[in-house]
Amino acid sequence: MPISEFEVITNYFQQDFPQRAEINLGIGDDAALCTIPTGMQLAVAIDTLVEGVHFPIKTSSQDIGYKSLAVNLSDLAAMGATPAWMTLALTCPQPDETWLRGFRQGLFELAKTAEISLIGGDTTCGPLTVTIQVAGFVPQHCALQRRGAQPGDGIYVTGTLGDAGLGLATIQNQITLPLPIQKFVKLRLNRPSPRWHEGQALRGIASSAIDISDGLQADLGHILIASGVGASIQLASLPLSEALGYIPLNYAWNLALSAGDDYELCFTVPPQQEIALQKVLAPDSYTRIGTIESTAGLRCLTADGQLFVAKQLGYQHFC
Amino acid sequence: MPISEFEVITNYFQQDFPQRAEINLGIGDDAALCTIPTGMQLAVAIDTLVEGVHFPIKTSSQDIGYKSLAVNLSDLAAMGATPAWMTLALTCPQPDETWLRGFRQGLFELAKTAEISLIGGDTTCGPLTVTIQVAGFVPQHCALQRRGAQPGDGIYVTGTLGDAGLGLATIQNQITLPLPIQKFVKLRLNRPSPRWHEGQALRGIASSAIDISDGLQADLGHILIASGVGASIQLASLPLSEALGYIPLNYAWNLALSAGDDYELCFTVPPQQEIALQKVLAPDSYTRIGTIESTAGLRCLTADGQLFVAKQLGYQHFC
Repeated sequence: MPISEFEVITNYFQQDFPQRAEINLGIGDDAALCTIPTGMQLAVAIDTLVEGVHFPIKTSSQDIGYKSLAVNLSDLAAMGATPAWMTLALTCPQPDETWLRGFRQGLFELAKTAEISLIGGDTTCGPLTVTIQVAGFVPQHCALQRRGAQPGDGIYVTGTLGDAGLGLATIQNQITLPLPIQKFVKLRLNRPSPRWHEGQALRGIASSAIDISDGLQADLGHILIASGVGASIQLASLPLSEALGYIPLNYAWNLALSAGDDYELCFTVPPQQEIALQKVLAPDSYTRIGTIESTAGLRCLTADGQLFVAKQLGYQHFC
Repeated sequence: MPISEFEVITNYFQQDFPQRAEINLGIGDDAALCTIPTGMQLAVAIDTLVEGVHFPIKTSSQDIGYKSLAVNLSDLAAMGATPAWMTLALTCPQPDETWLRGFRQGLFELAKTAEISLIGGDTTCGPLTVTIQVAGFVPQHCALQRRGAQPGDGIYVTGTLGDAGLGLATIQNQITLPLPIQKFVKLRLNRPSPRWHEGQALRGIASSAIDISDGLQADLGHILIASGVGASIQLASLPLSEALGYIPLNYAWNLALSAGDDYELCFTVPPQQEIALQKVLAPDSYTRIGTIESTAGLRCLTADGQLFVAKQLGYQHFC
């Protein structure tokens, strides 16, 4: 039996989500009403996930719900912002209650962890598409941006790179891995860990930051262009998980550089802030991979100083 | 030749749009940064338009761009908020430059009039879907809401009702009208006039407000439920344009009550605020159609006091 738009909203999305004090009026009117704390700027990001484009067609609705929010929280993390609220535009072919229950559960799970309120939404009939917009708070003049990297700054990434790409290759049957490794890389693909705690900790320390959605090569490239600088990175320094040990090293580097979907942070830190960096981030949570240089362009170097060119560019959303 | 996501954003959406002082960082980073003026709340609304569901498949991209923003501005109008900024999530099958140029033109035209900035977006590959989120400013405690109507309050609507429904019937060849009338009703369908000026003027005067997207019957129904009241409206008082004179009166009433897509405001005003109302709105811009009553339910009455039941309910977005 079809359920109406209003029932969907009431049944699945109005209850239980974190209720922040800044939300003066939530779901249920023509618009939500919010207050922004004094001295704060609002950071606003929006991302759309389309079935068959951003996630494989058989992805569980739990994972779709989780990932739709995760990719947006990752954008807030890259700005050093604290998650505050989100809106959801959900287009799906028909209101299947089992699917919706799963979607809500995945979305709710991450929303609770991030303490982010759901303040509004629109549910429409059509091909499966999920758009989430998030807003976060960041003290005036403290946001991290893509511009700001200077020659001599260290280049860092959080976590490990390439796992999500290997997860996709596994799902697409391009490669066979031991079951526990399969499970790990699929989890990294479907349930990325947006680094909003790290992003906030880097305020006042990092000179630039971006989240790695399209692959390190493409996203670090955005920092370089926005900052008017270049960089060299050492492939031997790329943080690779145990899973990437199961594939040839060249393949692992390609995944780490260009497969995307990692949702780790890439950031730069001036030499004089290195000690501060060590104080705010746990040693095993980030890795130095290279140095900002004045010569434009990105150079990926092997241990013997050879240039390595990744086989594919980061994902371009218009295919 | 395919154009990439980044080129789309740069070529079509980054330039010329109004640049408000509150936008500290616009398109081009992981998130935009905005400042909210002191003493203001932020009103946030989101709406999705899907091809074949919210607009006929042959609708021009200019009209899609215009209407996608208009329906969102209408939500801000219903809260009494001043438009400030928007984000755009555009999913389309392939980046057809002619289509995109038209879409941008329609969107830009209304954005310029509303002085609203475009601060971010996401462009993805998939079936045509447009999601816009808007944010507006409203002084603390001054927002109009659905709740607040009291027995004795007058019920008012802006503009005329049912034109958009007649426009859709015309496009679907359900009815043939003289060409100038066809043109008018199609324009009312494709280019609604969101009433943000009227909404702002009604702050402190209206006891409740909503925008008419699903039809007067459904939307006034939301006010009644949120306010815990009922209402009677006089069908003879419904503001109908000259166009609706071309169809039988019963059909006109049905369109006015339940066809939706009008994007006029429905609002209630306590008797003691009627003089204030007359001062802030031009006499020909709004019409009193009935009165709030304590008995629950909505009664639509003919001139001889008979109950009229509209044939269809307002549009339900899950079909």
